[in-house]
Amino acid sequence: MFLQRRQQLFAAMSDNSVAIFCAAEEQTRSRDTEFPFRQDSDFYYFSGFNEPSALLLLIKHAGETRTVLFNRRKDKLAEIWQGRRLGQEQAVSDLGMDKAHAIEELGEHLHLELDGLDKVYLAQGRYPAYDQQIFAAIECLRNGLRQGFKAPKQIEDWRLIVDEMRLIKSADEVALMRKAGEISAAGHVRAMRSCKVGMWEYQLEAEIHHEFLMAGSRAPAYGTIVGAGDNACILHYTENESVMQDGDLVLIDAGAEYQMYAGDITRTFPVNGKFSPEQAKLYKVVLDAQLAALDMLKPGVSIYEVNQVVLNIMVSGLVDLGIMQGDVATLIEEEAYKEYYMHGLGHWIGLDVHDVGDYYDVKRTRPLVEGMAITIEPGLYIPADAEVPAAYQGIGIRIEDDVVITSDGREILTSDVPKSIAEIEALMANG
Amino acid sequence: MFLQRRQQLFAAMSDNSVAIFCAAEEQTRSRDTEFPFRQDSDFYYFSGFNEPSALLLLIKHAGETRTVLFNRRKDKLAEIWQGRRLGQEQAVSDLGMDKAHAIEELGEHLHLELDGLDKVYLAQGRYPAYDQQIFAAIECLRNGLRQGFKAPKQIEDWRLIVDEMRLIKSADEVALMRKAGEISAAGHVRAMRSCKVGMWEYQLEAEIHHEFLMAGSRAPAYGTIVGAGDNACILHYTENESVMQDGDLVLIDAGAEYQMYAGDITRTFPVNGKFSPEQAKLYKVVLDAQLAALDMLKPGVSIYEVNQVVLNIMVSGLVDLGIMQGDVATLIEEEAYKEYYMHGLGHWIGLDVHDVGDYYDVKRTRPLVEGMAITIEPGLYIPADAEVPAAYQGIGIRIEDDVVITSDGREILTSDVPKSIAEIEALMANG
Amino acid sequence: MFLQRRQQLFAAMSDNSVAIFCAAEEQTRSRDTEFPFRQDSDFYYFSGFNEPSALLLLIKHAGETRTVLFNRRKDKLAEIWQGRRLGQEQAVSDLGMDKAHAIEELGEHLHLELDGLDKVYLAQGRYPAYDQQIFAAIECLRNGLRQGFKAPKQIEDWRLIVDEMRLIKSADEVALMRKAGEISAAGHVRAMRSCKVGMWEYQLEAEIHHEFLMAGSRAPAYGTIVGAGDNACILHYTENESVMQDGDLVLIDAGAEYQMYAGDITRTFPVNGKFSPEQAKLYKVVLDAQLAALDMLKPGVSIYEVNQVVLNIMVSGLVDLGIMQGDVATLIEEEAYKEYYMHGLGHWIGLDVHDVGDYYDVKRTRPLVEGMAITIEPGLYIPADAEVPAAYQGIGIRIEDDVVITSDGREILTSDVPKSIAEIEALMANG
Amino acid sequence: MFLQRRQQLFAAMSDNSVAIFCAAEEQTRSRDTEFPFRQDSDFYYFSGFNEPSALLLLIKHAGETRTVLFNRRKDKLAEIWQGRRLGQEQAVSDLGMDKAHAIEELGEHLHLELDGLDKVYLAQGRYPAYDQQIFAAIECLRNGLRQGFKAPKQIEDWRLIVDEMRLIKSADEVALMRKAGEISAAGHVRAMRSCKVGMWEYQLEAEIHHEFLMAGSRAPAYGTIVGAGDNACILHYTENESVMQDGDLVLIDAGAEYQMYAGDITRTFPVNGKFSPEQAKLYKVVLDAQLAALDMLKPGVSIYEVNQVVLNIMVSGLVDLGIMQGDVATLIEEEAYKEYYMHGLGHWIGLDVHDVGDYYDVKRTRPLVEGMAITIEPGLYIPADAEVPAAYQGIGIRIEDDVVITSDGREILTSDVPKSIAEIEALMANG
Repeated sequence: MFLQRRQQLFAAMSDNSVAIFCAAEEQTRSRDTEFPFRQDSDFYYFSGFNEPSALLLLIKHAGETRTVLFNRRKDKLAEIWQGRRLGQEQAVSDLGMDKAHAIEELGEHLHLELDGLDKVYLAQGRYPAYDQQIFAAIECLRNGLRQGFKAPKQIEDWRLIVDEMRLIKSADEVALMRKAGEISAAGHVRAMRSCKVGMWEYQLEAEIHHEFLMAGSRAPAYGTIVGAGDNACILHYTENESVMQDGDLVLIDAGAEYQMYAGDITRTFPVNGKFSPEQAKLYKVVLDAQLAALDMLKPGVSIYEVNQVVLNIMVSGLVDLGIMQGDVATLIEEEAYKEYYMHGLGHWIGLDVHDVGDYYDVKRTRPLVEGMAITIEPGLYIPADAEVPAAYQGIGIRIEDDVVITSDGREILTSDVPKSIAEIEALMANG
Repeated sequence: MFLQRRQQLFAAMSDNSVAIFCAAEEQTRSRDTEFPFRQDSDFYYFSGFNEPSALLLLIKHAGETRTVLFNRRKDKLAEIWQGRRLGQEQAVSDLGMDKAHAIEELGEHLHLELDGLDKVYLAQGRYPAYDQQIFAAIECLRNGLRQGFKAPKQIEDWRLIVDEMRLIKSADEVALMRKAGEISAAGHVRAMRSCKVGMWEYQLEAEIHHEFLMAGSRAPAYGTIVGAGDNACILHYTENESVMQDGDLVLIDAGAEYQMYAGDITRTFPVNGKFSPEQAKLYKVVLDAQLAALDMLKPGVSIYEVNQVVLNIMVSGLVDLGIMQGDVATLIEEEAYKEYYMHGLGHWIGLDVHDVGDYYDVKRTRPLVEGMAITIEPGLYIPADAEVPAAYQGIGIRIEDDVVITSDGREILTSDVPKSIAEIEALMANG
Repeated sequence: MFLQRRQQLFAAMSDNSVAIFCAAEEQTRSRDTEFPFRQDSDFYYFSGFNEPSALLLLIKHAGETRTVLFNRRKDKLAEIWQGRRLGQEQAVSDLGMDKAHAIEELGEHLHLELDGLDKVYLAQGRYPAYDQQIFAAIECLRNGLRQGFKAPKQIEDWRLIVDEMRLIKSADEVALMRKAGEISAAGHVRAMRSCKVGMWEYQLEAEIHHEFLMAGSRAPAYGTIVGAGDNACILHYTENESVMQDGDLVLIDAGAEYQMYAGDITRTFPVNGKFSPEQAKLYKVVLDAQLAALDMLKPGVSIYEVNQVVLNIMVSGLVDLGIMQGDVATLIEEEAYKEYYMHGLGHWIGLDVHDVGDYYDVKRTRPLVEGMAITIEPGLYIPADAEVPAAYQGIGIRIEDDVVITSDGREILTSDVPKSIAEIEALMANG
Repeated sequence: MFLQRRQQLFAAMSDNSVAIFCAAEEQTRSRDTEFPFRQDSDFYYFSGFNEPSALLLLIKHAGETRTVLFNRRKDKLAEIWQGRRLGQEQAVSDLGMDKAHAIEELGEHLHLELDGLDKVYLAQGRYPAYDQQIFAAIECLRNGLRQGFKAPKQIEDWRLIVDEMRLIKSADEVALMRKAGEISAAGHVRAMRSCKVGMWEYQLEAEIHHEFLMAGSRAPAYGTIVGAGDNACILHYTENESVMQDGDLVLIDAGAEYQMYAGDITRTFPVNGKFSPEQAKLYKVVLDAQLAALDMLKPGVSIYEVNQVVLNIMVSGLVDLGIMQGDVATLIEEEAYKEYYMHGLGHWIGLDVHDVGDYYDVKRTRPLVEGMAITIEPGLYIPADAEVPAAYQGIGIRIEDDVVITSDGREILTSDVPKSIAEIEALMANG
């Protein structure tokens, strides 16, 4: 899988060039403790290697290709204290590298690996410390004309190539994302079953995370949001520190990361298990919009078109409910809806929850193609102080699923968790 | 609580000085997602403020003191997207600041706040970006002689004062640590109850974290270690990705963080619920050592003395079991035990799991005093390839509890989780 | 001389401290060529050492003092190409160092030299690359508690001590400054003798620099200013690229650097050798002011008082000539004169032309004391577009001499160059 | 001239690209004084603009080209203190810029100028502070996809294009270099005329610099070398601080910079005006070699070939004089001569004394072409401790002239200063 991706990138690289990928660094949490290590997505995409302090070089020289890894040296003492390391020998045998150097000797080897090449592909700016070492190696070659060195003269951003590669998911990737979707769905089902008036928001987070981790998801793909009442109107509310009240809706946005791939589901349901009439009406607007959007997804359709349909349903709904006033088309054209629906319809998903890839071609109408993975997440957020009927104040609703575009339509990866009012109420009643 | 600490620090500062504390920054996990924010311990200790992008100044000038906070401005749009912010007005009212500036205007205000002072207390090197801004402010004063500016001429490390303050826990802090200990203990009990042959190590992690979060611990205090078999011999094994086998011991080192304070417990128990005879013998050596150590703790005793007793018990035990050969005193003097017990006996604990504070006075015999909090964690790790009787190979055992020194002895904060063989086996049998 | 200064600084340092001085770095002029090396004044003041890439440590530990130099290693090949180096052995024998390390081994030795000290005196911010290495050494000690390291906890700016030391010149220094004054004066005499209508301004610069260098001044102390006509109204005009016209005055501000000490003289004279009546009138105002100022200088007098006398003479003169209108006292109080006299009366002079040292005590009335060296340089600059009688437009006049305060008065160091109208015209006539 | 160069570069740039050139920064000499400003050669080559704090952008977009300058804003106060500034309006009218922005607003405009381009040509690493601002502008575009920004994806080193441009001198450039050669020659003639036993080396430097500056050369092109006796064996000896002794040779390497172009001449002559027999013999070896080399220069010849002839003459000579022993061909092959002739035969010359441009093609045999400018400077350096006949010890001889390759041969730019023994002795006798 990784080898094949490297071949694909080599094919896109010009001759006499190198593409350099940097591993993520460990991040301090407090004093001498660190957050759980999360590899850089691009580095992982091409290496499958999960340690920090590493550099991957894909070198294409005179038509031949070779892959070189810089990684940490085996070190018995360090490994007793900090954990196992792959080392150079196994990097070659296990990861299919052509060569591996100790990263501790980066200064001695890097410029030699770059010597004679014309171009360096680099995501400059992402890892400034590595950038500096790479530029120092190039400068060293530039000053070494008399020793016969030849320095690369071009630096090109590989993101333009790699982002497009990552945008189209292979069957292997879809399989992992399907699993991430299933685990994420199970977490949401668990939350619905467990929810009770008077619980803390973070206790639903606990239920969800337990479900994730039991199923082998080593971390949530992003900060889990559990927002009851008007907390739901804060888009990235991750404090989750309020008590959930009778009569409130709770919005949960949570997804499992499974073998580096993200799931991303949002559901909104009544804390006490029963939607009030107004909650139900507003919920239905969002649900209708989401279902309509999902139905439209297939190759050739653009997200722009889909969003127009969503806007039409949602704005019509808001007008019907007396939340907005005026002509639907005008409200859409003047973007008046942005007061209640201020984010986009969805986003690419993959190794990252907000995955890479351009959303637009020339006129923001990029058509979907097979293998793209996207979330669909319309939402409505009525602030507590909005000038609307009181029953709608302080309500936030979002419904989100993950989808892969197939040859003739779509596969919804996260359908195991209910979203119709009836299904939700049934599940919660029998939890 | 925070005010009182600021008073204590003011008293230790020289006149015409400022102590500067920097908030932690958010850490990227991948692309545009971040790890859950964890405030800098020292910043929190004096401010009680939990947002990033902030600077706390304790200023003592001509005998008067004032506390100034730089924090993020209120910003409706940013708050809808990223969460609530306290802002300047509430910083004064809620946190007892004398003044609050928007951090966005740091450049305009910082040098004015430093003008006329002689000394800046700073933990230089911890936040290089803030260091630069502080030095720039000082340089600006230095070049502003003609405008009547007067630049501080001394920079002093506040860690030497603050570390000693944090080393002695107040009654308020002990109360929080007691709670952290209880939650941590509950997690371990849950793990013992849940453990079954064939489970993945990370599934015990799931049980523990669920217990923590349900009880209001928003994060583990450090990376949870669940190491079965010889994984237990890797001290900071956090992969937790093996299946637990019948006949193996599993070592769990896990602690809850409760309102910023750390718990830290280690227990080792049989995956199948029953210690084998050899496991029991080795376990007993460690347990005897740990119990003896706990018994000794009281004001006036030094950790050095305690460790001597621990070494004596453990080395005697290893010799009795045929794992080491020779004279116990000699083996201790020559540090031969370091092959199997390579870490220290324990560490300070508090806002950080490895809390601040010197361990040694002149001759490494710093006596304990009331209010110190420490963990006691002897361990024995017999590598799989050690030249010892086969039944002992590949076993790692550690037993750790958290203790606060009282006026005449100690309080064990983590005693709710069993550690005798009988108790453990009983708990697991009735799980 | 250098040893004595080190003793004086040691006496002012607190115990268990080190003062660190950094050598200047070579500055690139273009591509691989460099400007002539100029040592850092403070580094030279304490070391007498004239090479780049060096660090001087004055260490006071447990009451004992030692001086340690880091400097470049002897290297035969480098010396054939780039010039001789003193090396470590000769640093000890020739410079009176107690120890010398190769600067190439800074990383291995620096932290060991700092170990156990409490305070580092440092002019932080001047040489950021050295700052970084020093902070890294301190951080290394801070993290090395277990190896028994003890890191300094204070950084203090030595400028507050050293500036005051440098402010008072010793007899040795005055001797060097006398010589710098003589050479500078000879340069100005040469310029007066050589000046002819139609010459380029830079050709007077050539005459002056030839005089300087022939007398052993290896460089001018600052960029030589030769401004004819209204070029004289640009205070730091160093282009010197106009042809000097009949009827114009030319202002020359030039000083020789002799063995690191600066001379600084300004004279203004007619290109054609004869002052016009209006030029003479304006010149006389400045000259009267300058002479009155020089006459006042002695211990106990403050520059503030002197400047008040100068302002009185100059503003009265401007009013008499019809250049300013109004009441003299009011014009002074309202600083109306700043349109024509916008700079200060003078500046400290020594190793730097604008030498170090505070100008003010509490109320800007710092009294002069024996050993201070100062320039006195009143000036009047009438822009070409000023609304004044046409004959005064586009004239800039400044007269500057260097002075050392003696026990009961002053010694003028630069009196060898004429400044009365009669003397100047005589010299230029007989050139 | 500058416009034509910009056209030439535009022609070599790919479409939708920008080439960025950075002005040199002012360099501190000591405290608040600066070295005379010297513009960056490449920036000047394309702009003709002589101020610091500037950025030149050559933009080629959709086939159209435009030139944009960022330079300092007009500022009356700053100009009174620091000198005149061109400002934006005059940059357009005087320098032929299409647009000029204030450099103080770089942050607001730079990314807008780069928006939509594919490639940035940049000499990365030369001005790190500008690099950072350029990368920040690119990052800003990269993050601004939603605003419709498009970031360049390639960075290419313009040195590979520009160096080759600068390597071939236009007729305009040759005219300036001819003048630089004449002034440089006049300086050497003056030194020969002025030299007397007992003078200081720096006094010859004074004579030379006076000659340079009187003729309109505002600075020497590099640090003037005046080395008598064995000081001549230090290749870049610029101390010039010895007294010149009777019987010694003195080596002078000095060149004038004229309107940014360098002259570079070396002559060696007897301090007392008469070569000793051994000095004459050794001198003749070098002179013969130099004359032979000059005679060979024409299009199609390679420096490698020329140097082989030089080596043959010099090594034969050394063997004849008993300084080297053995077979000439072998001594050359084994590079035994490097003990006495350790540098190259010459170097490109132009805006920089060591001008840009590759010396080698594939096999170090780059043929000369019309318009190349090169120096020819064979030299022999016999250390004072060399094991050679005593009369040759401590002698350094180098003879260097500047040459431009013409269509069918060469023009020597520096022939106004004698180099034959007879001519030198005659000049010195009649000085």
